[in-house]
Amino acid sequence: MSYTYADLAQRVREVAPLTHCLTNSVVPEITANVLLAVGASPAMVNHPEESRIFAGIADALLINVGNITDPDVAAMRAAIEGAQKAGTPWVLDPVAVGGLPVRTEFARSLVSGAYPPAAIRGNASEILGLAGHSGRGRGVDSGDSADDALEAARELASRTGAIVAISGPTDIIVSEHTTTHVRGGHELMPQVIGTGCSLGAVVASYLGVHSDDLALRHAAVVAAHAHCAGAGTRAGADPQVKGPGTFAPVWLDCLVHGPESVEACTIAEGAHD
Amino acid sequence: MSYTYADLAQRVREVAPLTHCLTNSVVPEITANVLLAVGASPAMVNHPEESRIFAGIADALLINVGNITDPDVAAMRAAIEGAQKAGTPWVLDPVAVGGLPVRTEFARSLVSGAYPPAAIRGNASEILGLAGHSGRGRGVDSGDSADDALEAARELASRTGAIVAISGPTDIIVSEHTTTHVRGGHELMPQVIGTGCSLGAVVASYLGVHSDDLALRHAAVVAAHAHCAGAGTRAGADPQVKGPGTFAPVWLDCLVHGPESVEACTIAEGAHD
Amino acid sequence: MSYTYADLAQRVREVAPLTHCLTNSVVPEITANVLLAVGASPAMVNHPEESRIFAGIADALLINVGNITDPDVAAMRAAIEGAQKAGTPWVLDPVAVGGLPVRTEFARSLVSGAYPPAAIRGNASEILGLAGHSGRGRGVDSGDSADDALEAARELASRTGAIVAISGPTDIIVSEHTTTHVRGGHELMPQVIGTGCSLGAVVASYLGVHSDDLALRHAAVVAAHAHCAGAGTRAGADPQVKGPGTFAPVWLDCLVHGPESVEACTIAEGAHD
Repeated sequence: MSYTYADLAQRVREVAPLTHCLTNSVVPEITANVLLAVGASPAMVNHPEESRIFAGIADALLINVGNITDPDVAAMRAAIEGAQKAGTPWVLDPVAVGGLPVRTEFARSLVSGAYPPAAIRGNASEILGLAGHSGRGRGVDSGDSADDALEAARELASRTGAIVAISGPTDIIVSEHTTTHVRGGHELMPQVIGTGCSLGAVVASYLGVHSDDLALRHAAVVAAHAHCAGAGTRAGADPQVKGPGTFAPVWLDCLVHGPESVEACTIAEGAHD
Repeated sequence: MSYTYADLAQRVREVAPLTHCLTNSVVPEITANVLLAVGASPAMVNHPEESRIFAGIADALLINVGNITDPDVAAMRAAIEGAQKAGTPWVLDPVAVGGLPVRTEFARSLVSGAYPPAAIRGNASEILGLAGHSGRGRGVDSGDSADDALEAARELASRTGAIVAISGPTDIIVSEHTTTHVRGGHELMPQVIGTGCSLGAVVASYLGVHSDDLALRHAAVVAAHAHCAGAGTRAGADPQVKGPGTFAPVWLDCLVHGPESVEACTIAEGAHD
Repeated sequence: MSYTYADLAQRVREVAPLTHCLTNSVVPEITANVLLAVGASPAMVNHPEESRIFAGIADALLINVGNITDPDVAAMRAAIEGAQKAGTPWVLDPVAVGGLPVRTEFARSLVSGAYPPAAIRGNASEILGLAGHSGRGRGVDSGDSADDALEAARELASRTGAIVAISGPTDIIVSEHTTTHVRGGHELMPQVIGTGCSLGAVVASYLGVHSDDLALRHAAVVAAHAHCAGAGTRAGADPQVKGPGTFAPVWLDCLVHGPESVEACTIAEGAHD
């Protein structure tokens, strides 16, 4: 390709994509701080009337179904309608889908809807659950390995045109003809709430800047994962970090350095076998 | 007893109890981070339909009435019904009860309901307010001393079978025949929002693992308090800590070390006089 | 004047004003931590029935319309009615007003209502939007400079009696006959979500203590701005700070030292030209 992943990270900071986040009640603050750190501009707009308008103004939209309530569903549906009208790309984070009925039905309806997501990001159990397989997740933790979910991810990618990212110790990013592995991160990352949810928002920001064709979108999703994971790798090596509490602020500091973070990961690319 | 408090802390990390938190809008992020730090698995599920199901899957449930709204009340009632059906133990945190009418009526109805909490954790004014006495609280701060609330706590414990914990510079844990004092913590802890609310969630996690009999449940509530307070004692002694902002991440780091935290407290036990 | 700005900061800590915050879903935790750090007592009470009562008990009220939903509007209207009855001063933070219709109509209705705010704090685009001019804001960022909004601020101040603060690299505080410039802060402050929103809460706390006459209220709003900005200046000079993640906790630590923070700013006063 004619650009490096580090170039994509650099471009996000230059453009500062306005990223509309409809996310769960636990993580809005860290999500906003992560977006600011990567150079994006976060906004959360939950009133259905405003959400519809704002999704048309924004460069990208995140729909995270963790802890949804009925008013959230209304705000999300309105936002997706606004996004469709304006062509705004959006990302689905299917938190705990497969395990709980309201969000499972809702997330599946979005995926088969008139304007499916440009990308889907979840752990293995969530990707299995979204695809209609029964995963082993319990709560928000995955009971399945990323490899278990690979076929489901390929099926989702093929059916919807979305890029599907399976988060885990190694992240796997799948689109119709390509599978990429991103190795990086740090064992403290899952001990900080919102590192996964804010990754979904970062994916949206990257797609808000890089959306020309499927190959570029795939690369953008890979770069977003490498950006967050590589910042984790670098933060984990900082001598100030003694545990999850001191890890979180150093990780945010590292996110500011997108190209360096991307380059801290091992990225293995390849077409499908 | 045949186990130490440090053993109980260790066991929480081994089991990683899935802890369903219905808490107020200010503290979900720190609550989740505290639960992760002590080795539990947090989840917040607020849709009434999902909340009912999830309380049956989870190992423990927290109901924190700080800043409740009508939809929260519905989610909480549904969760308690689900918990009752499955026998899931739950903890009530009666934030500002006694001072504000909606939460006071709601919290009192839960305590006299069909499935009362396994534990109640609040400051002195809140325990007095929950028991029907008029405390001197204003907002979320206690205007009363822990000793003032001791009789009210004993009455609540006797009436409901719950273990009642009064938070303060010295925490007092009361069950029908036992009163235990936990001395520890640090003066910066009340300067960090959510240290008290997340203690309620930690109590729930401990009860999700240790629930065989009243003596074990009492010990679990004591250990949860010692875990959080002792981590505060240890964090406050760290030379990196210069104020409440730098205290919070170091406290989270210290929470990872449960047995060491528990042992940093002075625990004075005894049957009622 | 017979008091210094540092005196006003000191007095806030002595009184610990109970500050009722109805704020957006992204920033309640940092808002509460900031209020605790400056010596105030935060509380968030969103149930309309309780909100009305609590606004009468509290020393000050913050209304932040970022991310409002219909239930928030109900809670805010009830709180302002309670504040009016008790004479509690309140602050309006018109987040993204001018750009989104529901909050714009709501915020304008409050400003022309029966009990207008004692102070208004926003960025230049928001002040322009609130005054009915079309600003260049997109999302929550200002597309206008503070000087652009000066006339709109004077018009609002004159029409409502409120003190109007325009946030920016230099903050401008305007009341009917006085304009004050506060220079301080740090370039990392806008990279931490909630530094602006929590400033609105600090302004409310200061007004909860200092409300005798317009000159004192003006000085209180100036001191609140200098307190937050000066803590930013001091935090930014700390060698531990390497980016927005490590800035945030050090900033909270610095906020504990109100008089020193105030004195780290340059404050230029003057009557209107």
